[in-house]
Amino acid sequence: MDKSFILNKTSPRSSARRGWLLTTHGQVETPVFCPVGSQATVKTLTPEDLKSVNVNMILSNTYHLYLRPGIPVVKEMGGLHKFMNWDGVILTDSGGYQIFSLANLRKLDEGGVSFRSHIDGSTRYITPEDAVSFQQDLGSDIAMVLDECPHSEASENEVLAAMERTHQWAKRCLAAHTLKSQHLFAIVQGGLSPVLRQQSAEYLASLDFPGYALGGLSLGEPKDITFETVRHTLRFLPGNKPRYLMGVGAPEDLLEGVSCGVDIFDCVLPTRVARNGAFFSRLGRLNIRNASFATQKGPVDPECNCYTCRNYSAAYLHHLFRCEEILAYRLATIHNVAFLSNLMQEVRTSIEKDCFEEFKGDFLARYQPTNESVRIEQKQKWLSARSGETPS
Amino acid sequence: MDKSFILNKTSPRSSARRGWLLTTHGQVETPVFCPVGSQATVKTLTPEDLKSVNVNMILSNTYHLYLRPGIPVVKEMGGLHKFMNWDGVILTDSGGYQIFSLANLRKLDEGGVSFRSHIDGSTRYITPEDAVSFQQDLGSDIAMVLDECPHSEASENEVLAAMERTHQWAKRCLAAHTLKSQHLFAIVQGGLSPVLRQQSAEYLASLDFPGYALGGLSLGEPKDITFETVRHTLRFLPGNKPRYLMGVGAPEDLLEGVSCGVDIFDCVLPTRVARNGAFFSRLGRLNIRNASFATQKGPVDPECNCYTCRNYSAAYLHHLFRCEEILAYRLATIHNVAFLSNLMQEVRTSIEKDCFEEFKGDFLARYQPTNESVRIEQKQKWLSARSGETPS
Repeated sequence: MDKSFILNKTSPRSSARRGWLLTTHGQVETPVFCPVGSQATVKTLTPEDLKSVNVNMILSNTYHLYLRPGIPVVKEMGGLHKFMNWDGVILTDSGGYQIFSLANLRKLDEGGVSFRSHIDGSTRYITPEDAVSFQQDLGSDIAMVLDECPHSEASENEVLAAMERTHQWAKRCLAAHTLKSQHLFAIVQGGLSPVLRQQSAEYLASLDFPGYALGGLSLGEPKDITFETVRHTLRFLPGNKPRYLMGVGAPEDLLEGVSCGVDIFDCVLPTRVARNGAFFSRLGRLNIRNASFATQKGPVDPECNCYTCRNYSAAYLHHLFRCEEILAYRLATIHNVAFLSNLMQEVRTSIEKDCFEEFKGDFLARYQPTNESVRIEQKQKWLSARSGETPS
Repeated sequence: MDKSFILNKTSPRSSARRGWLLTTHGQVETPVFCPVGSQATVKTLTPEDLKSVNVNMILSNTYHLYLRPGIPVVKEMGGLHKFMNWDGVILTDSGGYQIFSLANLRKLDEGGVSFRSHIDGSTRYITPEDAVSFQQDLGSDIAMVLDECPHSEASENEVLAAMERTHQWAKRCLAAHTLKSQHLFAIVQGGLSPVLRQQSAEYLASLDFPGYALGGLSLGEPKDITFETVRHTLRFLPGNKPRYLMGVGAPEDLLEGVSCGVDIFDCVLPTRVARNGAFFSRLGRLNIRNASFATQKGPVDPECNCYTCRNYSAAYLHHLFRCEEILAYRLATIHNVAFLSNLMQEVRTSIEKDCFEEFKGDFLARYQPTNESVRIEQKQKWLSARSGETPS
């Protein structure tokens, strides 16, 4: 796989791009949103479920698979695709984000990073070369370099140091990477500093990776700063390479990211909130546990044509959630993944038809995002709860 | 629905019967095993999942639906079939078994039974007429009379009193039942006493119900006594009516029940143990958590052709269970329900071909049942844990 990307079109009135990601397991239309299957399963769903909502690319986590079942087991079973029975595209992250979420559980040196497993407390040590080797053994279609993701309250010096280490490690990862059927993407760091972001993008662009990710964002900072940073950074990355904004998945953020020129997104959001009873709709998130749904005969989202909305009343879903029935979590997940899959299809079509900006405006005019301050508070709570606990 | 049953054939060398159960939602080949969907869902499965393993009849629990979402809600939503999107056959129990499992939480009088909800502790009162009315509102295909199920250590006098009350209540249920599209089945009680069992069967047979269940069995007594009681009781029930043995679902017990002349079975066993990682196989139950499965490339049960065994290695299932991934519970449930569905299909075919007894012998020669003393201990633990807690 020499070429990783075909750029079909850029919107004349924004930076939105329509393209194709080229991988060993097929081509993926971009912009694309990838559901997350941390432990070799997109929680509650089968591969057939994913295909039924037109998902053909997912993300999986090297960190989780390294701890359980262990990389050698997945390799022995014929690689990650075969292990989880998924013949679509897989992007694996490197584990960097998870390891650096383990606040007090990790320690850095020049060679790599040592940390304690969040499962059994055992001490582990990983080098950039290990991260590449693990992902080669998993056989993912797109692998990520090991990066250092500074925490959201890091000082400027800490952000600088993390960026420089990320650059050194990116170079080592590139040197260690030998699997021709796999693309290795770099990760731009630099916190919220325009100077450092430019420096990081330019340095990594000079190494000529087949794709570039933006890391260290969507960690609780205000959204306008997130997207200012994205827009700024993308100017220093080559236009003919795919761009991946890590950890973004709220509908309004996907539209904003697309208008900045992002091609790939991933986030646990749609699947995680589904298990909590939140259903996406064109009007915003709906909480199925609300009493108003107890006797609603129609589907939770009348504009949706997914399996869940075609076959089950809101009242039934309300009942399943109240009873904590396992089926509830799958039905909600199918809906939310379908919602984002349909949204991205509409995004792609609108870029093709030169009307993405109108589509985005129309969508946002109806969609009520989760309150910004509530959102930041939730995210902070989530980030602090997980530091040292189960990284997502 | 006047006629409830067509008896095709009785095995010449045992009492095994091959027949058809006739209902408003279609005919069901008997002997049949019904998976349990207590709360209007067979845990983890969709209706499509059930159909994919050739299940067309399930059991649901009036007690659970009465508490959540409440009978009026299900009625308002168009009945239980529509509510849960299941167009197959539904048998509902009356709630008697659950209420009488609530040990200290219930109180009897001539009119009915008062009890405390295991969910919110609220006091409720149900009469036999209520139990019929609830099931008519649910619109199940087969309804059960409200019975008193004595606990396994009840004295002979208590068993006698429970039987007599069950008889009075059966008469009242029959008088209250008006829904022509629904069959109302009686429940034979009488504990382990041959005299009382005969008396109960004869009395209820005289009331001419369209079908008869055997209640108060499989509550921890030794299995040979269970089936001695079944065999004895069935002699006093009309041969042209379907016979239903409540709460039996282990493979070896299904075969024994069939050889006694039982037509219908239900049990939470296959779905409950699935969620605990136990997979049925022709050799016995396999515990997928065992380390021996960690790298097994083949399916957990090489003789099975279900969705789970066709698509996933034992190693992957082992991994999902270790990680407590929700998908694990569905994949295991599909397998166990498929296993019993296939087993009953083979049972029916063997009766047709006059070789049921050979089939049973061959099956039991290979199948290693869960150790009898372990089984009784587990059952006792389960029964005492649930008295006053969540009845199944």
